[in-house]
Amino acid sequence: MLRGLSGAGLGRIENDESLIELAAKYGFQAVDIDAQGLIERHGVEGARELLKNHNLVIGSIGLPVEWRSTDDVFREGIVKLAQAAAAAAALGCTSCCTYILPSTDMKAAHFTVLATRRLRICAQILGAYGIRLGLEFVGPHHLRTAWKNPFIWTLEETLDWIDAIGEPNVGLLFDAYHWYTNELTVVDIERLRADQIVHVHINDAIDVPVADVLDNGRVYPGEGVIDLAGFLRALHTIGYKGAITQEILTAESPTDSPETLAERSKAGFDKVYTAAGL
Amino acid sequence: MLRGLSGAGLGRIENDESLIELAAKYGFQAVDIDAQGLIERHGVEGARELLKNHNLVIGSIGLPVEWRSTDDVFREGIVKLAQAAAAAAALGCTSCCTYILPSTDMKAAHFTVLATRRLRICAQILGAYGIRLGLEFVGPHHLRTAWKNPFIWTLEETLDWIDAIGEPNVGLLFDAYHWYTNELTVVDIERLRADQIVHVHINDAIDVPVADVLDNGRVYPGEGVIDLAGFLRALHTIGYKGAITQEILTAESPTDSPETLAERSKAGFDKVYTAAGL
Amino acid sequence: MLRGLSGAGLGRIENDESLIELAAKYGFQAVDIDAQGLIERHGVEGARELLKNHNLVIGSIGLPVEWRSTDDVFREGIVKLAQAAAAAAALGCTSCCTYILPSTDMKAAHFTVLATRRLRICAQILGAYGIRLGLEFVGPHHLRTAWKNPFIWTLEETLDWIDAIGEPNVGLLFDAYHWYTNELTVVDIERLRADQIVHVHINDAIDVPVADVLDNGRVYPGEGVIDLAGFLRALHTIGYKGAITQEILTAESPTDSPETLAERSKAGFDKVYTAAGL
Amino acid sequence: MLRGLSGAGLGRIENDESLIELAAKYGFQAVDIDAQGLIERHGVEGARELLKNHNLVIGSIGLPVEWRSTDDVFREGIVKLAQAAAAAAALGCTSCCTYILPSTDMKAAHFTVLATRRLRICAQILGAYGIRLGLEFVGPHHLRTAWKNPFIWTLEETLDWIDAIGEPNVGLLFDAYHWYTNELTVVDIERLRADQIVHVHINDAIDVPVADVLDNGRVYPGEGVIDLAGFLRALHTIGYKGAITQEILTAESPTDSPETLAERSKAGFDKVYTAAGL
Repeated sequence: MLRGLSGAGLGRIENDESLIELAAKYGFQAVDIDAQGLIERHGVEGARELLKNHNLVIGSIGLPVEWRSTDDVFREGIVKLAQAAAAAAALGCTSCCTYILPSTDMKAAHFTVLATRRLRICAQILGAYGIRLGLEFVGPHHLRTAWKNPFIWTLEETLDWIDAIGEPNVGLLFDAYHWYTNELTVVDIERLRADQIVHVHINDAIDVPVADVLDNGRVYPGEGVIDLAGFLRALHTIGYKGAITQEILTAESPTDSPETLAERSKAGFDKVYTAAGL
Repeated sequence: MLRGLSGAGLGRIENDESLIELAAKYGFQAVDIDAQGLIERHGVEGARELLKNHNLVIGSIGLPVEWRSTDDVFREGIVKLAQAAAAAAALGCTSCCTYILPSTDMKAAHFTVLATRRLRICAQILGAYGIRLGLEFVGPHHLRTAWKNPFIWTLEETLDWIDAIGEPNVGLLFDAYHWYTNELTVVDIERLRADQIVHVHINDAIDVPVADVLDNGRVYPGEGVIDLAGFLRALHTIGYKGAITQEILTAESPTDSPETLAERSKAGFDKVYTAAGL
Repeated sequence: MLRGLSGAGLGRIENDESLIELAAKYGFQAVDIDAQGLIERHGVEGARELLKNHNLVIGSIGLPVEWRSTDDVFREGIVKLAQAAAAAAALGCTSCCTYILPSTDMKAAHFTVLATRRLRICAQILGAYGIRLGLEFVGPHHLRTAWKNPFIWTLEETLDWIDAIGEPNVGLLFDAYHWYTNELTVVDIERLRADQIVHVHINDAIDVPVADVLDNGRVYPGEGVIDLAGFLRALHTIGYKGAITQEILTAESPTDSPETLAERSKAGFDKVYTAAGL
Repeated sequence: MLRGLSGAGLGRIENDESLIELAAKYGFQAVDIDAQGLIERHGVEGARELLKNHNLVIGSIGLPVEWRSTDDVFREGIVKLAQAAAAAAALGCTSCCTYILPSTDMKAAHFTVLATRRLRICAQILGAYGIRLGLEFVGPHHLRTAWKNPFIWTLEETLDWIDAIGEPNVGLLFDAYHWYTNELTVVDIERLRADQIVHVHINDAIDVPVADVLDNGRVYPGEGVIDLAGFLRALHTIGYKGAITQEILTAESPTDSPETLAERSKAGFDKVYTAAGL
């Protein structure tokens, strides 16, 4: 399993080049970046070199399509998706992820129908480039009622949705925070097959009742109460070999320097990997 | 467009053989029956002869699968579906229909996901036999709140669902009652393509506010307030050529003899077809 | 059924603007053009106006994807396809077509597998924009052996392929020349449903044995031996309402002026439409 | 990886009950049997008990559908498939396999199209029961020309076909004999993901030129020239955890007793597992 870093948790990090540099410096093996942007600035060969020279692979790119709004808005993203997929594939990245907000202002059944079709189209396009689509279920309780109607937030619902989408290249983005806020256990991970997991996020939660955990109140791995040792061990047990990417969402951007935050991230990874015996 | 008769509206009709006889006697061209049962009682050749001798085709069979409950219950229906599809195909029937209850006790998003997958499997199996799957949206207002969560009841939602299911052989069962209770117009029909319609139901509604129309309060074509002339004309205009099958759901079974009711059905069809200029 | 004109048969026609002008002048109702190019030169509104002012719709655009070569080449077309589909949709065009060469230098089974997947992806992307994909089977005998291994050229094979692709928005591009060189009859058309036909090409063949008819030896409608009256009548009978677009492929470009050739095209259409009683 | 036994290689073994007994006696952990037959003779509970008492699971069932002939013949198998899938699922079996003959008397492209659609329907039905469909590519050279036209026999073609079928639950039945006759290497296995493999067959080949190896000339593991140590180690390396089932096809049934042959099978497994360091 590759230690991965994203910009979320590094404060005012300037750009993906800085992220690449810090990730390499602090022993990370993967970065979640904008592949297309990197290619635009460095060319395909330059971008490949940059990653290679830092011993990094891309963990995942974000899905550049708005699939939660109207058909018109969705369609606008399709060209962008094809371009992003081509860029990701050119840099050897095989994962593209999006998250599922757990409630919606639309009628839930109708929205499910529309989103199912749109995500299938996204999966087909990504599949043409050998890229998988990871769906992230989102657990924090306050988001389940943030919009009018409940949508999808459990592991079971998400797996069933993946079945309904019906494309072979769709799986989970498994985030420690949502595992925790769904009150899932190590056993729930052990019941999965590694190939059902497209990507993994790691982060930690403060010590408040689970129902009060805020989506943007995350802390660094090892600084909170989530059983990240169990989380990592279970993922290792089932044979997951992809990136474990840190994603720290906070209400306000940390004021420490990116360098300091990267150092802190490394310390967090060291702590929980050690605890997991990895 | 073929005049079609089903048992719903013929009171205590004994069996499909009686339905076939009455349908033929009163000038109908299609019957909605249990194809498999007919074959079990008469053999394939016998069943074909029976239909042919009465100048009848089968309008549609019902989907013998419970797709609204658990996966276990769903699976129990799959063998039955394959058998029913084989029987229908043997008798030249190319349509199989089910209805969508407009609310559900399940969480709507999760139920949508499960139902999407199950109906796709049904469509695949039916498709192997050259049979289409018709989904009937159900309009009466009281059913929209009969269970905890709103599900799907509009034409638009149903068309979007058909897209999400994603199989080429899925379309609408278009019922005059649900067209009326959704307050749709002739223009809404004219916007459809004929091939989007798998099957049609005809019946009429009593003169109460639309929001008070009860699903099991239906009357015979021409005896109520639905613009059935406009309904039929619009279907004819877009090139629909399948069956227009009477389906009269009532709280209590009519006490008149099936013969009397079949005669009354014919009178209703005559009236509305004439009004439609067909 | 709309009378349609393409550049194929108009000699050294300069651009789509000239095609639009000639089509309107000679009473055509549809043009097969490059929607994206038109928008690039006139903007969306300008392109819409241009078509509207000439009482024209776009019959079909060509599929801008090379699906017969390597995966890499295929992928290069995906961004282009999304852009072309967006442009076509913006101008109200709902059809995009490609042709099937009847033989291939690849191993036939492997090529079929690759092409099935690629065309499904194309259909999915087009479907996101409400556009259908039309597959043109190609009949001339010499092309069946022009490459090493026989591929697909009959109507039946093509319909089966459409089933295998499995997307609801895939159908036929039905070309009179390929209908003729496959020695199909009016009855073969009458067995189709209108919704199975995405687009139609019209043209004529010279009086040589069918096995000697050359793909690029086509003549104008009414100037050859194909039963175009029967062809058009059968399409009308089954309810086809789309464009009938002229496509004249010749070994050498005609030397007459585009204007003269457009006039000749109109005369051809008049002749065969009259013969068909349309 | 589970040591698995099938009837192929046990001579005149009487029935699946005898197979179960011998498999248990000689330390096997999986059997490839007819799940439905077992249930018919013992009931669901009885069949479960029988397997449990012998510490056995079912490795895979065979696909009871003829997908290589006409649509009519194919359809006859659909009811059987649903029944077989229900039986397999009831006994915890999640794998169903079929083999691909490497040549065909049909036109290859057309056959590919038909077979793609049929296998997709099979996969959908199996998927409803949580069962995967394994496709076995067949390598022996003489079968590549046994029928008129070349079909599919390489690993690459089969993986591409699985993509074209497009259902998430389709993968490979990987057979050591076909790996050998395709002249594949350990590296080719290491490039696969474990989840691409539904089931594995093991057997050995005699020392003749690869092009002369006969499909029904197989010998017991460890008695021939295939690098089964490398084969097993590579499967283990990529994380395959399913059954490794012996399948010995021979021109004539062995005359030794099933007991003797089971003992010989065990000796073969011991030899190659030891050589693989497993």
